[in-house]
Amino acid sequence: MASVVLAVFVNGKICKDPNMVSVDDFFFPGLNMPGNTSNAQGSRVTPVNVNQLPGLNTLGISLVRIDYAPYGLNPPHTHPWATEVLVVVEGTLFVGFVTSNPADPNVKNKLFTKTLYPGDVFVFPVGLIHFQFNVGKTNAFVFAGLSSQNPGVITIANAVFGSDPSISLDVLTKAFQVDANMIKYLQAQFK
Amino acid sequence: MASVVLAVFVNGKICKDPNMVSVDDFFFPGLNMPGNTSNAQGSRVTPVNVNQLPGLNTLGISLVRIDYAPYGLNPPHTHPWATEVLVVVEGTLFVGFVTSNPADPNVKNKLFTKTLYPGDVFVFPVGLIHFQFNVGKTNAFVFAGLSSQNPGVITIANAVFGSDPSISLDVLTKAFQVDANMIKYLQAQFK
Amino acid sequence: MASVVLAVFVNGKICKDPNMVSVDDFFFPGLNMPGNTSNAQGSRVTPVNVNQLPGLNTLGISLVRIDYAPYGLNPPHTHPWATEVLVVVEGTLFVGFVTSNPADPNVKNKLFTKTLYPGDVFVFPVGLIHFQFNVGKTNAFVFAGLSSQNPGVITIANAVFGSDPSISLDVLTKAFQVDANMIKYLQAQFK
Amino acid sequence: MASVVLAVFVNGKICKDPNMVSVDDFFFPGLNMPGNTSNAQGSRVTPVNVNQLPGLNTLGISLVRIDYAPYGLNPPHTHPWATEVLVVVEGTLFVGFVTSNPADPNVKNKLFTKTLYPGDVFVFPVGLIHFQFNVGKTNAFVFAGLSSQNPGVITIANAVFGSDPSISLDVLTKAFQVDANMIKYLQAQFK
Amino acid sequence: MASVVLAVFVNGKICKDPNMVSVDDFFFPGLNMPGNTSNAQGSRVTPVNVNQLPGLNTLGISLVRIDYAPYGLNPPHTHPWATEVLVVVEGTLFVGFVTSNPADPNVKNKLFTKTLYPGDVFVFPVGLIHFQFNVGKTNAFVFAGLSSQNPGVITIANAVFGSDPSISLDVLTKAFQVDANMIKYLQAQFK
Amino acid sequence: MASVVLAVFVNGKICKDPNMVSVDDFFFPGLNMPGNTSNAQGSRVTPVNVNQLPGLNTLGISLVRIDYAPYGLNPPHTHPWATEVLVVVEGTLFVGFVTSNPADPNVKNKLFTKTLYPGDVFVFPVGLIHFQFNVGKTNAFVFAGLSSQNPGVITIANAVFGSDPSISLDVLTKAFQVDANMIKYLQAQFK
Repeated sequence: MASVVLAVFVNGKICKDPNMVSVDDFFFPGLNMPGNTSNAQGSRVTPVNVNQLPGLNTLGISLVRIDYAPYGLNPPHTHPWATEVLVVVEGTLFVGFVTSNPADPNVKNKLFTKTLYPGDVFVFPVGLIHFQFNVGKTNAFVFAGLSSQNPGVITIANAVFGSDPSISLDVLTKAFQVDANMIKYLQAQFK
Repeated sequence: MASVVLAVFVNGKICKDPNMVSVDDFFFPGLNMPGNTSNAQGSRVTPVNVNQLPGLNTLGISLVRIDYAPYGLNPPHTHPWATEVLVVVEGTLFVGFVTSNPADPNVKNKLFTKTLYPGDVFVFPVGLIHFQFNVGKTNAFVFAGLSSQNPGVITIANAVFGSDPSISLDVLTKAFQVDANMIKYLQAQFK
Repeated sequence: MASVVLAVFVNGKICKDPNMVSVDDFFFPGLNMPGNTSNAQGSRVTPVNVNQLPGLNTLGISLVRIDYAPYGLNPPHTHPWATEVLVVVEGTLFVGFVTSNPADPNVKNKLFTKTLYPGDVFVFPVGLIHFQFNVGKTNAFVFAGLSSQNPGVITIANAVFGSDPSISLDVLTKAFQVDANMIKYLQAQFK
Repeated sequence: MASVVLAVFVNGKICKDPNMVSVDDFFFPGLNMPGNTSNAQGSRVTPVNVNQLPGLNTLGISLVRIDYAPYGLNPPHTHPWATEVLVVVEGTLFVGFVTSNPADPNVKNKLFTKTLYPGDVFVFPVGLIHFQFNVGKTNAFVFAGLSSQNPGVITIANAVFGSDPSISLDVLTKAFQVDANMIKYLQAQFK
Repeated sequence: MASVVLAVFVNGKICKDPNMVSVDDFFFPGLNMPGNTSNAQGSRVTPVNVNQLPGLNTLGISLVRIDYAPYGLNPPHTHPWATEVLVVVEGTLFVGFVTSNPADPNVKNKLFTKTLYPGDVFVFPVGLIHFQFNVGKTNAFVFAGLSSQNPGVITIANAVFGSDPSISLDVLTKAFQVDANMIKYLQAQFK
Repeated sequence: MASVVLAVFVNGKICKDPNMVSVDDFFFPGLNMPGNTSNAQGSRVTPVNVNQLPGLNTLGISLVRIDYAPYGLNPPHTHPWATEVLVVVEGTLFVGFVTSNPADPNVKNKLFTKTLYPGDVFVFPVGLIHFQFNVGKTNAFVFAGLSSQNPGVITIANAVFGSDPSISLDVLTKAFQVDANMIKYLQAQFK
């Protein structure tokens, strides 16, 4: 199926020959397997969106599993096209999101945080910067629904300091109000 | 909060005084607890939609946990306003959905089925009749995302044979092509 | 045009070469002819949606004519992707719809019914089970608008007892709380 | 109900206390009665939208009946928020719509026309100028579905030459490339 | 790119091979150049919509520059698929829009007008007839955002009196309540 | 009007008493005045959205003027609910956006950049991180349309390092892969 996404005849909008649709267009296995968290952040997102599951086409929803090693972090990021609602299956997570700036530029963005335990559900509204941090001593994992067949993800640190090509030093020094050496140091973490 | 749903200031559409919004508007606990399946169907849906979690307002998504006793059934039903995508956490489920009828009245509705194991993901497109059946010897449960803050649910047998007041015998005998005694017997199961 | 639906240049979204669009892309004849009601239900739906009328593409609306012999029934069904609003042209119809289940599982689905005469308009909200029954001594017919270019239709009895392949006896006996013989009897009506 | 529109509990979005909703929220009578065509245009539109039928709230559809005396005209107009699809019940209508201007300003707006007889269905895409003209010797009438609970209507001649207050002569003489006396004469028809 | 519009990989909906997307898919030059206003209306619209700028595909917005010679008019027109919000950069404009007709046919369409100076912003809601008229002694120009990747434009005088083919005299004499000679005279202006 | 947004009767969805709507509900002055760029970033955004201009309610569009001192920066930010399309009126801007991360975690976010001159138009798709930087020796300014009545804005540096309360050091040191002193230094810039 590659990068071409099937539309299916059940959803009333975009059609594939009904004779070619099968039950496996609606099925994806393997979310029982923990994702590999052996990386710098100690976390792993396993997506099940329209790229993995073509039957989601036009239907406005997808899922992910997220695994966290102890002290693992799903770092501050946004989903440009989806709200996320997660449920903790195992572990203890400190989570938060930052609100969009109000009209008054002198008012700061607010941070809303909560410590979550198994069975807790939390909402991250569309487009807002959010994170989850494993503050327990054991592995943690969650399942989350996202309100798009293709939610997108923009990890802030990577997008800002690790893009290809790099954002210019002039822009970053001014944006973060620090000197070029500090920006270069930050960029070096995401080479 | 009763039946009045909060709108919150983070989503850019409908506003509540920002000073009144708190992190708990985005939080709901307890989905680690199995639902009580001591009922005729042997299953229990625990919803987390905008009625339970006001921060979902305008955001187009919600969650459920569904528990199944051995041989428990989430009987054929539709969500009139949402697609459902579930992930099996524990147990073995036989699931299926029936497609919308094609233009040609001589063509039957197709049934798509699959046996699911832990970690398997499956999609039930919006408005289609679907079911999950625990075919394992142990309890089963799933988490599912739904593409609406208020998905609705119409359990076919209850809506057709157990509505208040009852659908008339004339209608039901003709619809199901059986006599009034059989309809009355079916209705008696849902009194 | 077969199963391929034309998009047309007037709607600003999906394009066909304007030189190839003609007035007949927006035209469909024949709804003055009564549909053939010589069938088990004594009713016939004649659809005019994007499959018949390509100019409806992307425009979110379609029409049907429904004919009813005396005592004819348009049996309980849903449109998974459309609200229906009908107007009675001839005859007397007993109509109804069943609401989506409220949050409280001990509350029954409500049935709303009305007897309609020529000129009466009635709404069946998207995704809800509804029916129309000719309770007069003469033929009846209606025109109805539907809020989708492709509304879909799921006739409950056919989808539940007549799908291809059949829903398993285990599922249906449990869902309807009756024994396998009764389910087999019901299924036999929709072979 | 006046200008306040009820939301109803069946549609999953905006809520009224379910105990207060009744079947009559979904019902509107009287479309069997011909509209009074004793006016300058010889036509009459009888709307059934959310202002008349509160159960249409949030559901994206409405209906109208349109009556035409012999030689009666539903004059060129647009629905700013809806596509219209009509079916002729009685009479013979000459109908048309004008397309949106293509990118090239040297290309004229195209007019698409058709003569319709009973049972003919025709689509007028959202926002386009269209008309229906009774070219038969008898009364005619149609039913039409519109893809909005509140389609709006802008009758071109009235909006341009009969608004309150009037559009200035400077604007209208230049727009129509004629002198002020001719504009005043046109305006006098819509006082 | 001709009439084929690219979809791009950044918007999460419709995909082009990411390796083929370049920054120029999001770029369009030249809006600093005044449009040529040497025409009967003394105005010129320079559009930048998805036909000029493929990166707008699926994104629901576009821009225009509009130039006005002294006494130049952007004549009464509608955008069938977009609201317009403009900002005056240079000059003095008398602008207006006409509301959709209320339910009561005895109530006239209301005209809302304002004289605008540089820096003034004004909204023309989707589908409503509106105009801008240069009432200053110098050239004027504005930039405007439109809420569609393809807003469409229907210039009333041209669509009604200058379509190809012409709307019949029978329709236009009745619609405007004037005789055929006057209609022919009006039509002659838009040959 | 404070934080309560007017709905207006022309848009067909949400109503205010028509007798209370006036032309000034659709008007906002002052975008000819340069914004005050005497601040750390050397730029100023002057918004005209539904908070300033109530007639935009439900209409899905708004405007901004952005001013840049020489070397001024509109720092990396997202609009969680809108695509932005800008036109340069004066000055020379270096602009860019970073794409959403593709499925493969080993692939970097791509940066797309362009140097813009007066009359150049550029698109920043919804939810993506973007910036504009004045690389000329004079003041610069742009007008931009945004595809929401309330686009929101999340300035990355401020939201990540200057939120109220602060994001914890544990989260930020891990996200940016640097030590606590460097994070504290960054946070100190946004106190």
